[in-house]
This record gives sequence, C-alpha cells and structure tokens, in this order.
Amino acid sequence: MEKPTLPKGTRDFGPAVMAKRQFIFETIRSVFQKFGFQPLETPAMENLSTLTGKYGEEGDQLLFKILNSGDFLKDADAQLLSTKSSKQITSSISEKGLRYDLTVPFARFVVMNRNEITFPFKRYQIQPVWRADRPQKGRYREFYQCDADVVGTDSLLCEAEIILMITEVFKGLGIADYTIKINHRGILSGIAESIGAKQNETSLFVAIDKLDKIGEEKIKEELRPKGFSEESLTALFDILHVKGTTTNKIAFLQSRFDASESGQKGLRDLQEVFNLLKNYNASDNHVEFDVSLARGLSYYTGCIFEVKINNVAIGSVSGGGRYDNLTQAFGDKENLSGVGFSFGVDRIYDAMDELNLFPKGATATSKVLVCHFDDDSLYYGLGVLSALRAAGIASEIYPDHAKLKKQLDFANKKAIPFAIVIGPEEAQSGQLALKHMDRGEQEKLPIERIIEKIKQP
Amino acid sequence: MEKPTLPKGTRDFGPAVMAKRQFIFETIRSVFQKFGFQPLETPAMENLSTLTGKYGEEGDQLLFKILNSGDFLKDADAQLLSTKSSKQITSSISEKGLRYDLTVPFARFVVMNRNEITFPFKRYQIQPVWRADRPQKGRYREFYQCDADVVGTDSLLCEAEIILMITEVFKGLGIADYTIKINHRGILSGIAESIGAKQNETSLFVAIDKLDKIGEEKIKEELRPKGFSEESLTALFDILHVKGTTTNKIAFLQSRFDASESGQKGLRDLQEVFNLLKNYNASDNHVEFDVSLARGLSYYTGCIFEVKINNVAIGSVSGGGRYDNLTQAFGDKENLSGVGFSFGVDRIYDAMDELNLFPKGATATSKVLVCHFDDDSLYYGLGVLSALRAAGIASEIYPDHAKLKKQLDFANKKAIPFAIVIGPEEAQSGQLALKHMDRGEQEKLPIERIIEKIKQP
Repeated sequence: MEKPTLPKGTRDFGPAVMAKRQFIFETIRSVFQKFGFQPLETPAMENLSTLTGKYGEEGDQLLFKILNSGDFLKDADAQLLSTKSSKQITSSISEKGLRYDLTVPFARFVVMNRNEITFPFKRYQIQPVWRADRPQKGRYREFYQCDADVVGTDSLLCEAEIILMITEVFKGLGIADYTIKINHRGILSGIAESIGAKQNETSLFVAIDKLDKIGEEKIKEELRPKGFSEESLTALFDILHVKGTTTNKIAFLQSRFDASESGQKGLRDLQEVFNLLKNYNASDNHVEFDVSLARGLSYYTGCIFEVKINNVAIGSVSGGGRYDNLTQAFGDKENLSGVGFSFGVDRIYDAMDELNLFPKGATATSKVLVCHFDDDSLYYGLGVLSALRAAGIASEIYPDHAKLKKQLDFANKKAIPFAIVIGPEEAQSGQLALKHMDRGEQEKLPIERIIEKIKQP
Repeated sequence: MEKPTLPKGTRDFGPAVMAKRQFIFETIRSVFQKFGFQPLETPAMENLSTLTGKYGEEGDQLLFKILNSGDFLKDADAQLLSTKSSKQITSSISEKGLRYDLTVPFARFVVMNRNEITFPFKRYQIQPVWRADRPQKGRYREFYQCDADVVGTDSLLCEAEIILMITEVFKGLGIADYTIKINHRGILSGIAESIGAKQNETSLFVAIDKLDKIGEEKIKEELRPKGFSEESLTALFDILHVKGTTTNKIAFLQSRFDASESGQKGLRDLQEVFNLLKNYNASDNHVEFDVSLARGLSYYTGCIFEVKINNVAIGSVSGGGRYDNLTQAFGDKENLSGVGFSFGVDRIYDAMDELNLFPKGATATSKVLVCHFDDDSLYYGLGVLSALRAAGIASEIYPDHAKLKKQLDFANKKAIPFAIVIGPEEAQSGQLALKHMDRGEQEKLPIERIIEKIKQP
C-alpha cells in the first residue's frame, strides 16, 4: 500500500503550529468583538451560480468545483462529452464550488437576509478559503482569511476604526514595526485628472501601484507606450515624490487638485480620518499616507488600506478599503456602501515566526505530567491530577507503567514544563516531588503548594 | 437576476447562533486542553485514495468529490465518456474529496508523521465534515465534529478520562440530565458465546443495539429467521434484562461468562474503569452500564460509549470507543491501539436550545452603544469609546448622524444592553447618561463610574 500524501498546496497543522495559530486567531477575534463586530460563518460550498463571474475570468478558473452526487453524467450533453469539452461540460456535472473568498459569501448572506439585518451591519468572518492556484512558497490552496466589514453607512468613523483595530491586533500580537498605508480612490483620480490622464486611469493606477517594487524609470517605460507624454510623466512624479508629514502632503495635493472634484473629496476624507483618530486619543504613528498605493482598484471607491510588517520578506499582511455597493453583483438595487479589511493569517504567522515574536506561553501542551512508580502511586496520582485540573491547570498522567526515565522523556519531548513524581514514599507523606523540567531542579511540596507555584505567572 | 440560494443541507450561522456555537466550541476545547489533548487541523480536501474504501460502499457514495482543475476531461476514457459511466469515469476526472470524518484524516496524519510524534499521542480536532447525505431535520451536509483520541496505549485510564471529560463538558454547558452509556465489545462477545451464537455475532449485535427503540418482541422477530433458537433468545433476554447497580450487573454477568474469555476480559476492563473513576474522586452518577449498547461495532474492540441528553427529542450527542489499530487502513503494520470519542455540536446545540440552556451572556454583541446629538458630542464620544475599549468592554458608536430614537432602536435590535447618551450638556459636564436598555432606566455618571458599573458581573 502506498504511503498516503496530502493534496498539493494543503497542510496539516500539528499541535505546536496550532497553538501559535490559535494565538493569532484569538487576538484578532477578540479585537473584532471589542469593536462591536459580530461573527458570521457561511458554508464551505456555495452554488456555482453564486461564485461564478464574481472574481473575473482568472478567478473562475481558480474555483474548486464539486462533482454532483450520484450519476453526475446523466444530464451531460453526449456531443460535448465526445469532444471532451471540459469547460462547456462543467455546468452540467457540477453545481457547487468551494468558497474563494469571504466577501462574496457575505454579500450573498446580506441579500438573503436583508430584512432581518439591522444596518449598519458589522460582521467578522474567520474561515478558510480555497483557490486552485499554483502552490509556491507562502501561497497555498487552502488558507484562512479574517475579514471585518461594515455595510450600510458612509461614515468615515469606520475607516478610523479599521486603523484602530489593526493597531490593536498588532499590539496584541507583539508586532511593533509595521506600516498602515492609506490612500483614497478619489486622490488617485485627482492625480490622473491633474496630469491630464483621466481617460487612461486604469493603466496609470496599475503602474504606480508598483512604484515600490520597480521604481520610477520602469514605470515611465510602462506608461510611455500607453500615450503618456513626457510632460504628464514629469507632473506625475512631481506628485508621487511628495514628502513630509501627512498635513504637508495634503496641502501640496490640494494645490494640484484645483480642477479635480474627486481629488478634493479624497483629501477631505483622508483629513477627516486623521482628525477622527485624534478625537479617539489615538496615535497615527504607524499610518502613512502613500499616494502611490492603488491595490487593484477594481471595486474600491473611497479609502484604501494596506499593511506591511517591516523588515520581513513577506509583503502585505492585511488590506482593504471602501466599496460602493456590496450586493450589486447579485442584482441588488439598493446601494449598500461598505468598508472592510482582511488579515492574512498565514502571512502574519510566517512574519511572526521570522521575527521570533511568538510568546513562549503559546504552546498547546499540558503544564504538568504526573509520574508514578507502581499501581498504588498511580492511583494516588489520579487524585493529584483531579486537584490540578480542578484548579484549572492543564495536566495529564503517564497512562502506562514505565520507568521514570521514560515518563520524564515524554514530558521533555512534549515540552511539558513540570513533572510531579510520586513514589510509595510521596504517596505516604503527601510531600510530592515537583520537578522543573527546564532547570532539572526538584523540590518536595504538598499538592496545595504545588498548585500555587504553578499558577504563579 | 435570480435571488441567490444556499446549497441543500448547508447553513449560514448569523451572529446570534454563532455566539451560542462559540460557547459550545470553547467549552469543549478548554476541557480537551485541560486534559492534555493537543489541537490538530487537517485540510478540508484529502486525496480520494486516502478516503475511498474507509467508510464502506455507502460512505464512498456520500463523499463529495472535487473536479480536477483545468482541462479535467483530458485524461478521461472516451469510450467510458460515451457510455456515460459516471462511476467508472470518476477516478479520471477527480482526485480529491472533502473530509468525511475526522478519524481517517487523523490516521493519515499519524502515518505521515509517525517518526515525529511522541506516543501516547492525545489529539483533539474541531472541524467541519461533509457528507452528500439526504438532508433532513437535524441532518446536514456540512456539520462540525469535535473529536478527541489517544493512540499508542492500552491503558484504561484513557477510558476513565473520557468519562471525566464528558462530565466536565456537560457541566460547563449547564446540561444536568444526561446519561453516559458504557459497554464493552468483549461483553457483547461474551453474551454471544453464552447463548451459543458465536458464529452469528454481527446479526446479534445489530439487533440488540435497537432494544431501546424497537423492544424485545421485534428483536426476537428479527433474530428467529437468522437461526436463533427460542432457547437462545430466552437466554439472551435473561441477560439483557439484568437490573441493579453496576456491581450487581457485573456479578450477574460473571456467572454467565464462565466459558467466555472475552466476556471475562470485558467485565474486568469495565470494573477497572469504575475503580479508576473512584480513585479520581469522581462520581459515576451519570454512567450507566448498558449491556445492549453496541454502536455499529465494526471497528471497536474494547469499551464503547454513547451519551444521551435526557428529555429531548435528539438521541445520542456523543459516542466513541476503543479500537485496535488506527492506522491499519493505511497498511501500517505496527499496531496502534487507541480510544476516542466525538461530540456532535449541532445536536448539542439543538438540545440546549430545546432545553433553553444557553446562558444569557452568550451573545456576540457589544455591551455599549455610544449615542450622540451633533458633531461635537460625536467627537467627544470617541474618547468615551476609547476609554470603554481600553477597559476591555466591547462597544461601538452609532456611525451616522441620526435621531436619538433611531440610535436607541439600533441598540434594541442588536440587544446591546447599555447606551451612553451624549449631548452638548453631557460633553460639557462629563456627567454622561447611562441608559439600561432592558429596564429603560437612566442615570448620570462620569465615564469611570460607568465602566465600573458595566464591568460588574
């Protein structure tokens, strides 16, 4: 029999990794809840009619499709089958696909439950998504997303709270060096207008989004063949090179956006977000107004965000922005403005691992192993175990009769920090041997004192 | 455009339901961890070679299969396609399936990581599984399982700890009236031997497992045509009708199992489990030795468990038992004895709902809504909000300008228990109006006192 394997691009998470992942999830979840976001979970499977056409043609190809149950070929067209037309046959043999992101299922939920939902609606969602992408380092076919969105309000308070939440999550995770980049769709439009490239926005945005990576010259090379004059390119980099504080940048852009209403609107929004932060008594230390941030702008209409952890190989670990109408894709006529963002847990995990930021306590192992010599000390040990657990201390007993060395080896391998060793003498006197596994030291104490010791932070 | 729908047998979990589900999950998770079980997560998708043949023919048919990516028909046999042989074509167009339970993925994990795992290995796993079953009340196509298993030891301590864990989970959930039924594969064999039906075990076990539901006469009707004599049936019900304490039952069966080694072994094991419980200082109040419990015995080899919440429509909410060799199905030669059990969260949820057992606190909503009259009081409110959150109180501010009535309606609809109302006067004096939404009462207090009030349990 062949040794079993995992599907390409998927992973098992064993105990050590799980403990760290749970630490990240719980940190994010508790911040979301503290900010009044409510949990939602949707099924792993959605009807393909819900998913198809929502992610562009490339996205459609990356959907995992589920074969209909039973005699799935029954309704398939014989002619198409004989020509092996995979693409055309799909809809007749597969009705369901795996969730590709959390936004479309959220929009579907809102459309289906519109009458029961109290707007503005703040929901968070922490679930895996699946993409039939080519697996490579840091890119998986199954990965978790953690999304928070507010829909049903235009208020810029939501944007300010996104910054606050990111700040609080990173504080909770112990990540100190990071940057929350912010920009605004209106400001990007303002730039396009002010350099006379209004008709050519998309090419412009795609190009400048890469400024960090490819630099000025390459961007010029990319834009020249698309009809950008040298004059407009000079004007463009005059703007993109804006330096100084946010206030400076806003003042400078105001002078350039005389003729651009959307540019002015973008600047006002941004200024108000910073103003709100001040009223929250919150610092904007980590926030950077980045004129070149564009983030595949297809559906963003207001502020856009991107978060980078500094000094790690991994790029962006979180991003989001304001969109005009969440439920449009389902033919919903009532506009439902919203703003949301998403944490990429796998990337945060990799970054924290690289920076060695996981707290030592983040293990998923018992605090104590109870060790024993014979039947009597084992039976005695069960009472000790019950006392430890009643005190809320995660603990276990070595289940088999084995030499003490083997039992202590077990504790070491599982990184259990304490062992209580019980022999006939200890069971008699109630003075138990508490072994500190890291230091190898041992002391004799009654169980009440041991519990106190272990519970000390 | 059509209104979107959910795939048959799947569900969305909105905020109110999620809060209750999270309460159940967290209770189970914390008990598992307190008993030294470590978390494991495996991918939603497994190779079909891992899944197929592990759940019997019916199980194979209930697997959700995932269409290969890209041109999936490329390698399919043209002849089979033309005859529309769904079953035979499957393996050439689908390599992966969705997880059907948590046991097979666990076994696969153990086989793949045998050299890194420290045995005995205690893992828990809380994840959804998928089955293409006919949906009906209480039966879904996507549902969560919560499994805990120990592999690599024969020790009956594990069985005792399963009983302890079930007891502690139910205590945490507030479920007081339940029964943990226990039996032993050896005892069932002992019964078969003692009534002369050793060759006919399977029919016997299948029949007596239904004693509760269909009663004595129907079981006799079922067994007669299968070659059971009236004499053996009389002997059978003589045993099945055994009454009294566990000690009585064991003594009675001992007298019948003179000739059955496995029967004697079963009784010894059971007696030792009860003896261990006593040494844990644990009660066996909820434990019932049920001679007729059989639980589709296919792979159990020792103790078997089943848990019922009493006085609800729903039947079993948890079950498990000891098995001989977890990794056998993957051709593993080294025997790996284990024992495990599983909680059915959906059923526990339904039972708790029926019994009205969810604690009032189990909501996923903010504790406080900050309400405001104008720009100034809104800005002032942001500082109040920051103070609340700094104190760990989940809170939010109404994001738009709106009449107070609308803001308070919003709090009511979301079941937010407190509102802080800030007008120009309150912003001036710092004496804020705290409204108790349930009672409709209002008092004026500074923010520090409000925080104290709200944090009181």
